[in-house]
Parts: sequence; C-alpha cells; structure tokens
Amino acid sequence: MRAVCLLSGGLDSATTLACALRDGFEVYSISFDYGQRHQVELECAQRVSDALGAAAHKVIKIDLRAFGGSALTADIDVPKGRPTAEMGEGIPITYVPARNTVFLSIALAWAEVLGATDIYLGVNAVDYSGYPDCRPEYIEAFEKMANLATKAGVEGHGALKIHTPLISLSKAEIIQLGVSLGVDYGLTHSCYDPVEGRPCGRCDSCQLRLAGFVEAGLRDPLEYAG
Amino acid sequence: MRAVCLLSGGLDSATTLACALRDGFEVYSISFDYGQRHQVELECAQRVSDALGAAAHKVIKIDLRAFGGSALTADIDVPKGRPTAEMGEGIPITYVPARNTVFLSIALAWAEVLGATDIYLGVNAVDYSGYPDCRPEYIEAFEKMANLATKAGVEGHGALKIHTPLISLSKAEIIQLGVSLGVDYGLTHSCYDPVEGRPCGRCDSCQLRLAGFVEAGLRDPLEYAG
Repeated sequence: MRAVCLLSGGLDSATTLACALRDGFEVYSISFDYGQRHQVELECAQRVSDALGAAAHKVIKIDLRAFGGSALTADIDVPKGRPTAEMGEGIPITYVPARNTVFLSIALAWAEVLGATDIYLGVNAVDYSGYPDCRPEYIEAFEKMANLATKAGVEGHGALKIHTPLISLSKAEIIQLGVSLGVDYGLTHSCYDPVEGRPCGRCDSCQLRLAGFVEAGLRDPLEYAG
Repeated sequence: MRAVCLLSGGLDSATTLACALRDGFEVYSISFDYGQRHQVELECAQRVSDALGAAAHKVIKIDLRAFGGSALTADIDVPKGRPTAEMGEGIPITYVPARNTVFLSIALAWAEVLGATDIYLGVNAVDYSGYPDCRPEYIEAFEKMANLATKAGVEGHGALKIHTPLISLSKAEIIQLGVSLGVDYGLTHSCYDPVEGRPCGRCDSCQLRLAGFVEAGLRDPLEYAG
C-alpha cells in the first residue's frame, strides 16, 4: 500500500512522514526546489527521508520565482522578531501564492503513476492560521477535485485521500508526536532565512519552533545563529 | 482586467486565448516545458501569443518526466492511425497524469500574483471525453478549491473563475470560432509525435484536427509529413 508524502525538510513534514510510515504505508516522499531562499531544506528532506525509511525520495524543480509575490521567493525581507501573537493575523508575507495547491497537484501526478491513493501533507491550522491553503475546508475541496481529476476518479476505484495528521495539533503536540515516532529533529530545518548556514532564531518559523520545544518540555537539538 | 490563459501552442488553446482577448481581458499566457515529446509546441505558443497580442507570455519548466506514466512523457509509443470512433473510449495512453491539475495550479499561482481572477483553459469534453481532467465537473471542483486556496478566497474579494469557452464545441466549431476571431492556425501545432519537424497526420490529435478542418469546410494551413 503506497502513499506520497510532501516533505519540506522541516519539523512538521518530518513528523507527517513518520505518521505515514506508522499508518503502514510504503511512503514516497517528494520535495520541491521552487526557488526558495532556504535551499538547505532540500538536503534536510533527503536526510529525513533516508533516516525514517521512505521507499524513495524525489526533488521536483519548479521555478515559482518566475512569479514572485512572496518573501520566500522574491526580494522581500523576511520579518524578524515579531511577537508570536501577531503571526496569526492576516496573511503573512511569507505566504507563497498557491504553493500547497501546486505541490499537492504534483504529488497527485506522482500518486497516480505509483497507483497510490493516499497523500500526506503536514499542514497545520493552529500556528499557520493566516495561510489560506492550510485550512481544513481547502484540503477537503482539493481532495474532491483530485478524485475527479484522475483515472481512479473516472474508473471508480480507490478514492484518493489527503491525510493531514497535524492539522489540529499545537507545535508542542507535533514535537511530542514526532519524538514518540522516532523523528530526529536534529535533521530538520525550519528557518525562513538562515544566517551562515544556521537557523536565525528570529523569523516566525524559528520562533514558533523554539516556543514549541519549550512548551513540550524538550530541547531543540539545532544550534541557532548568534 | 487581467486573465491568465493556458497556452500549449495547439489549435484549442490558441482559440481560447482569442476568446479571452475577445472578452476584454489583458491576457497573460502561460506554457509548460514538462518534458513533452513535442517541444516545438513551445515555440508555437510564443508565436501565437505574440500574433494575438497577449500582454506577456511565460514558459514554466516542470519535469513531469520524473514520474513517467504517459506516452507523451515516457518511452511509450504514441498510437497512430486509430479510427476516430475509438478515441473516445477509455483513458488514452497519451493522458498525462494530473496534467491539467498541475498546470491550472501553476496558472493559479501566477493569477494570484497578478491580481487576476480569471483563468482560461482550452479543454474540450467532446473530442477528449476520455481525459478525466477535461470534464465540466472537474473544472467546477477545481474552481471551488481555487477559491479556498488563495488570498482572494480568504479575504472574500474577487471570486476566481475558470473559463472553458470550448468545452462543449466540436473541433469544427472551434476552428470556425477561431477563424472568426482572427486566429492564424498556421502558427499552431497539434501533433503528438512530429516527423522531421512536420505533423505526422496519423496520431489521434492530427486526425481530430484534420477531420475538424474538413467538417468546417476549411483547409488546414499546416503542411503534413509524407
């Protein structure tokens, strides 16, 4: 039984991959080289995939820089040192237009070729409430569309399912779940804007991660800049 | 008022671009270099885009060959000389897994950056009834998903619309429409498997095109192989 798991190399997607393996799937992990600032995450994705035991890992190149429109892909500054209370308000500048839709669509293409009917995605509606494409109603709509888009949908066999095991967990709960499933968070990468190869500790993503470890009563194995 | 139009360089998408311009949009055309056999279509797309007067044309590279699974992207023979009556049965080997979903998603990303709420797609449910992602119910489901996926959906301004002006037209009707809108079909390219740079005349796509010109009472300006 095969599944495709989107893997960014970050904490959430590493935990999601561990969930897919726990659920008994032979898991094919997929990452995207989309012109992101933090390309080091692609190496992390490969290491996480190997360490957890995915059946295969592919990196698909797609140049979302061709469009711009986000601090992660265009020359816009990544916000630093924002109070975490502000992060849930509005749509952050680090939102990449239609990114989850593009990534899920490509994962769907691979799933169809593999004969897989399950796709795992590490979205979270708690910490990233400002991202439209992390909401449960979006995931449901994608799943419905995907079932009409593919051979499986036309031929009526094997309905496609999008699994989002983290969607209602806090960062601390995600970390506790991952630790219980054997995820080595020292292999993961969360920073939007690393400083000399080390996580900055001050962007929204680093702050949420650090606060999650504190709340979980665990130590983040990563070494932060400065 | 801006719109994004998917443009393959073929007869249908050229006609669709002409429809978007007729509808009064400033049109941004997008093509995909996805490892297809018939790369010449990308040059055709640029020429069609220039000739009809799109505001800009982008080619996005995405390697769907990484997955295989179709005669258009893997080393599987393209069928030749099939009776047109057989073409509507089952899902053809030239179906590329989740292709329209991947392409529409990327078009959606560009639309969001451009502030466009309209996307044009030249799908047709008559001649290509075997492709799951050419059906009206699929297009509706994509539109619904897209409205949840994007900033516009969250903020409640400007619902995104997917336009499919050709969906219920016959090939002959498409050609007549395009001619009425000034499309030069000599710039387009339809063949799945060109022979020495010229359309083969025998694959499903060439046969449907040629039959359409005959039915429309017009002459195809292209020169065919052998």
